[in-house]
Amino acid sequence: MQEIRLGLLGCGTVGGGVVRLLAQNEARLTARVGKKLTVVRALVRDPKKERPSELPASALTTRAEEVLADDSLDVIVEVMGGAEVARDYVLSAIRAKKQVVTANKMLLALHGGELVAEAKKHGVDLAFEASVGGGIPLIRVLRDALASDRISHFAGIINGTSNFILTKMQREGQSFEAALAEAQKRGYAEADPTLDVGGGDAKHKLAVLAMLAFGAQVASDDIPTEGITELEPIDHVLADRFGFVIKPLATGRAHDGTCDLFVHPALVKKDAPLANIGDVMNALALTGEALGPCLLSGRGAGDMPTAVSVVADVLDVARAKVLGVMGQATQALALTPMKPSPRSQANGRYYLRFSVFDRPGVLAKITGALGDRRVSIEQMVQQGGGDADGTAVSVVILTHRANEGDVAAALSVIAAGDFVARPTRLLRVLD
Amino acid sequence: MQEIRLGLLGCGTVGGGVVRLLAQNEARLTARVGKKLTVVRALVRDPKKERPSELPASALTTRAEEVLADDSLDVIVEVMGGAEVARDYVLSAIRAKKQVVTANKMLLALHGGELVAEAKKHGVDLAFEASVGGGIPLIRVLRDALASDRISHFAGIINGTSNFILTKMQREGQSFEAALAEAQKRGYAEADPTLDVGGGDAKHKLAVLAMLAFGAQVASDDIPTEGITELEPIDHVLADRFGFVIKPLATGRAHDGTCDLFVHPALVKKDAPLANIGDVMNALALTGEALGPCLLSGRGAGDMPTAVSVVADVLDVARAKVLGVMGQATQALALTPMKPSPRSQANGRYYLRFSVFDRPGVLAKITGALGDRRVSIEQMVQQGGGDADGTAVSVVILTHRANEGDVAAALSVIAAGDFVARPTRLLRVLD
Repeated sequence: MQEIRLGLLGCGTVGGGVVRLLAQNEARLTARVGKKLTVVRALVRDPKKERPSELPASALTTRAEEVLADDSLDVIVEVMGGAEVARDYVLSAIRAKKQVVTANKMLLALHGGELVAEAKKHGVDLAFEASVGGGIPLIRVLRDALASDRISHFAGIINGTSNFILTKMQREGQSFEAALAEAQKRGYAEADPTLDVGGGDAKHKLAVLAMLAFGAQVASDDIPTEGITELEPIDHVLADRFGFVIKPLATGRAHDGTCDLFVHPALVKKDAPLANIGDVMNALALTGEALGPCLLSGRGAGDMPTAVSVVADVLDVARAKVLGVMGQATQALALTPMKPSPRSQANGRYYLRFSVFDRPGVLAKITGALGDRRVSIEQMVQQGGGDADGTAVSVVILTHRANEGDVAAALSVIAAGDFVARPTRLLRVLD
Repeated sequence: MQEIRLGLLGCGTVGGGVVRLLAQNEARLTARVGKKLTVVRALVRDPKKERPSELPASALTTRAEEVLADDSLDVIVEVMGGAEVARDYVLSAIRAKKQVVTANKMLLALHGGELVAEAKKHGVDLAFEASVGGGIPLIRVLRDALASDRISHFAGIINGTSNFILTKMQREGQSFEAALAEAQKRGYAEADPTLDVGGGDAKHKLAVLAMLAFGAQVASDDIPTEGITELEPIDHVLADRFGFVIKPLATGRAHDGTCDLFVHPALVKKDAPLANIGDVMNALALTGEALGPCLLSGRGAGDMPTAVSVVADVLDVARAKVLGVMGQATQALALTPMKPSPRSQANGRYYLRFSVFDRPGVLAKITGALGDRRVSIEQMVQQGGGDADGTAVSVVILTHRANEGDVAAALSVIAAGDFVARPTRLLRVLD
């Protein structure tokens, strides 16, 4: 074996980036692995489409079995996307005792537990650095650097589209719709942006992070998830007034053998490091028991950053094969099935924006309902109002620390009041 | 060999933290290495001092040769500090074919090239994650995650003491002296703070970063270095007015086979991620050619964060020994001796604070001298003045991009003018 032979499943922009990085850094990578890394097969849909010049035309195939049944291949790199076909292909590669690298967060969120178990059974590695945070080496840091530490909690900005939209709303006063349109114009958002702005993409990535940070195998659909679609410019104005910016977060906390995992927009203090992670940038702020706080940030998407992570993984699994220690890295990943806690058990501070008719006694009713549930008030602002004509005004409350179940109970009492003009907006505060 | 036997050189707070982390995470670490990690020797100065209960009293010795000449040891961990004695011990360990881990930035800055060469010659690894950035996995990320990328430039906050002082000055308007006194009171600064506030500590760390990021072996004394001791509260006020905060930076840029390395306080845009890295936190903002921008931040010092990094390194070198691939990681570190460029060749934007007597024609003289050297002005502010009594006023100029040699030449012309009350303050802008 004079070379490590790679098969690509997919050769779009990420796969093409992988081909180019391997060629451009051939000497350095060969020195690290001890053998040359050669792409010998690449599964594509359209054989006519232009591919990187470094890829020989003979490598292209439209038939998956020419990659999956090729016994000469050492490493399979899955960069095709989608969940179900990718699952079949990756399982087939694992069973054929190939080392596998994937950049596919949806695949991992839906089938990660199964794939890791299968990789352990067959003694191969399943590497997936590129699945979360693009080029930011989140997974490598969680796995290697903090090997002797325990992550107690983390908060991340892991959807670049949502971060771009909230940054535009915050800095330029744009509406959600205008900011989304700009994101689409720039190619940061899909024609159907639901997966990004609805929180589904962040939910998938959070499930992957929970595996690495807490050894938690969760069904991603069990993660309580709120998108950013309901935010209005006034929320940014009011957050600013309280000293915060609104960021699209994915948070995790391990406790008592279970974990809290949430996706939602939240208020972040202006002087916190996450507050300055703007535009399409991603970041993960984690706290290790021994390490203390640590922040990692970078481009969370994009073809070349993702390709850098894929190649770092290829390097790892290729070295493991050369050294005869295939499967050890994945073996060390101990997963325990867990069900994340519901929101009603969460604790924190809350931003509550009430839209109410400006009548005498309304404030007393709101604060009374909150007080009945032991939710105490840190700050309160009334925005607009003073007209006697019955127009709605905004009353915004920042609570002290409270149980979210209690807050929800108080809000449902308030919602029944005849003074309520529009549904109450609840946002969480990152502490 | 049923265990990997460790010898510690030094067992103060970091060494003690290493002992505790190894004990607390024994099962996980054994699973990762395939063998148990056992501390069997620890060199200490005072055998009577209290040590972690996990360390058997029989391991303690005050005689270095009981560690260095013990053929049963696999890994030597140097956490004693200092440069010359540590160099002798580490060289001796390398020549005895031990795997070596060190947390000693001064040792690496002064003797890194020699130690790496010696480790390569004897086929062992020299690991030094803990030498820069405490628990932040900077070195691991530079080495592994970006294996297929090239770092084009970076800017870091790598001295926590200086960052604490500038944060206090900026946020609370304190003088340098008051902020330093508070840092000393809190244990963040030594009684003699010269190495921190004079930039010497950052210079050592920057030399280590240059090895990893650019493969540059530089003499740390060749790095142009300015401390933070000359900053005054008014500089923070004026920086704020231009939209910046002042941060203690170490910067690097690779170009044309050489590199620019500088240590100095600099103006950082308020919305840049580094601007929100406050107090004693450290950070490194780097840009990879493929990856784009990436930020890593955390506690840059402290016993437990540093111990986490030491243990991560111990894990790596122990695994390499178990797998029979000792020395490979260090072999991949190709170093080229380089002399960093002088400041006169740097390019950038500059903040110039002139302290001048408020006489007619002064502004024309200043702007004329700058213009003669092709230094053009982006913004200008005059602070104070209007008195005819000859008191000094501050004139602050933010330049467009210019060559630093030209700026220096213009400043020396201006310095000769009889209107100058005090030396001109020059600060660089991070772009």
